[in-house]
Amino acid sequence: MPAPFAGRLAAAFRRHDSLLCIGLDPEPHRLPAVLGTPDVEAVVAFNRAIVGATADLACAFKPNLAFYEALGPAGMEALLRTVAMVRELADGVLVIGDAKRGDVGNTARLYATALYDVYGFDAVTANPYLGADSLEPLLAREDRGVFVLCRTSNPGAAELQDAHLLGHQTVYERVAMLARGWNRYHNVGLVAGATYPEQLARIRALCPDLPLLAPGVGAQGGDLAATVRAGVDAAGGGLLVVAARQVLYASNGPDFASAARRAAAATWEAINRSRRCGVGGV
Amino acid sequence: MPAPFAGRLAAAFRRHDSLLCIGLDPEPHRLPAVLGTPDVEAVVAFNRAIVGATADLACAFKPNLAFYEALGPAGMEALLRTVAMVRELADGVLVIGDAKRGDVGNTARLYATALYDVYGFDAVTANPYLGADSLEPLLAREDRGVFVLCRTSNPGAAELQDAHLLGHQTVYERVAMLARGWNRYHNVGLVAGATYPEQLARIRALCPDLPLLAPGVGAQGGDLAATVRAGVDAAGGGLLVVAARQVLYASNGPDFASAARRAAAATWEAINRSRRCGVGGV
Repeated sequence: MPAPFAGRLAAAFRRHDSLLCIGLDPEPHRLPAVLGTPDVEAVVAFNRAIVGATADLACAFKPNLAFYEALGPAGMEALLRTVAMVRELADGVLVIGDAKRGDVGNTARLYATALYDVYGFDAVTANPYLGADSLEPLLAREDRGVFVLCRTSNPGAAELQDAHLLGHQTVYERVAMLARGWNRYHNVGLVAGATYPEQLARIRALCPDLPLLAPGVGAQGGDLAATVRAGVDAAGGGLLVVAARQVLYASNGPDFASAARRAAAATWEAINRSRRCGVGGV
Repeated sequence: MPAPFAGRLAAAFRRHDSLLCIGLDPEPHRLPAVLGTPDVEAVVAFNRAIVGATADLACAFKPNLAFYEALGPAGMEALLRTVAMVRELADGVLVIGDAKRGDVGNTARLYATALYDVYGFDAVTANPYLGADSLEPLLAREDRGVFVLCRTSNPGAAELQDAHLLGHQTVYERVAMLARGWNRYHNVGLVAGATYPEQLARIRALCPDLPLLAPGVGAQGGDLAATVRAGVDAAGGGLLVVAARQVLYASNGPDFASAARRAAAATWEAINRSRRCGVGGV
């Protein structure tokens, strides 16, 4: 019986004193020339170099499935190899499948099989639009985590997520409150974009105990210090700050891995500086 | 330049005088024993037999990606072969990728590549929770269709989709109204579960001109005649009624393909009887 997710997440935070989650979102045309022909082999080699250079700075790696799906069946093979490679190189660091899936129960069951059992993710992201029963097959596994989309980092997020319900709660606030109820196994987290620190702080206030996954720092423009201050829990933790493009593409020369390490280390330091000065600091 | 989606959908409706969309959701453990070892080869052979037996009764086939993802990279290979096989056996019948994807713009672009260019779907299903910009890469292709989740067929759908916004519109009604605005290329449709004919009728009233994709007849309990009456447009069309399990698993003996044909033909007839007696009938 694998250990409950909550304990594994806490251990991952402690292991490298890190809230840094590195996105593994490789695009063949952006790979360094030193890796040769930009094919699926180069994608795996790139991921291996990035993970090798940054594993001791991270609490999690997060491949977004779209980047692998776009490469066809061979891309899914690369995803399998990437998860296995993180296990090999980064002991105790979690792998989060950024899938944003959501489907009716009979089908959601198959997404759980795919994400947990075939690809072997420790946690996934999921879309709440279809309601609790659509998430149930993902939630039912105490050893895996589910980060439910709450307030996303993109400009269009406001269109539906910020709409006000009767009683003046917004849709994203309703999702945050529902997620608390879905947390019987202590394996539920929320996705809260770093680009909207006000909504991030609101989610933290509504859900003091849920881990938050915050993408949007870097290329999308989110402010790192503001994100950390708004997102950490009372103990200065409980937050995964996602960095992807600014680490992956810190250099496209032969030094890409050491440049990625420098970028990751700078982000790790900036996060830890902010969490120790922030309202939730220790 | 491929033809616009709206024209191809209209042609697909006319071709076999059909509103029947057959779900291709194979589960290895449910395949007929006559197909031998229940592996990926058997999945492709099963799909081929089903498509061969029902192509002249359908306007579309709809593989749900979860069923292929759960089989690993080889399952995605089976999905590629399934799309190619529908092209070969069912000229003019559309292939809808039931993917329910939704992600931020940079990532949504890669889902568009995967679904349209790698797997070659004529149309896809998509989740609106992230807003218009997350759907834009899917919507931007005039030759492909996007069925946006509006009111889904599962019991938990009400949790978020029926929540009332200020002004008393529900979330699903807001999505329906937003979708009208996303329809500049006449390539937007809505997913409206057959299990909730009242909400289906409301969506039809709000969007008289959008095609509706209605899953939930059969195993999920939706009433076929009520679905057709509620869902057709003023000309008695504009609706895709999904049948999956009741066709795929009509028999698990050696006669499975002819049993699937009988089930599909009965559904085709029942749909056409209802649309010709319904309020929108001709």
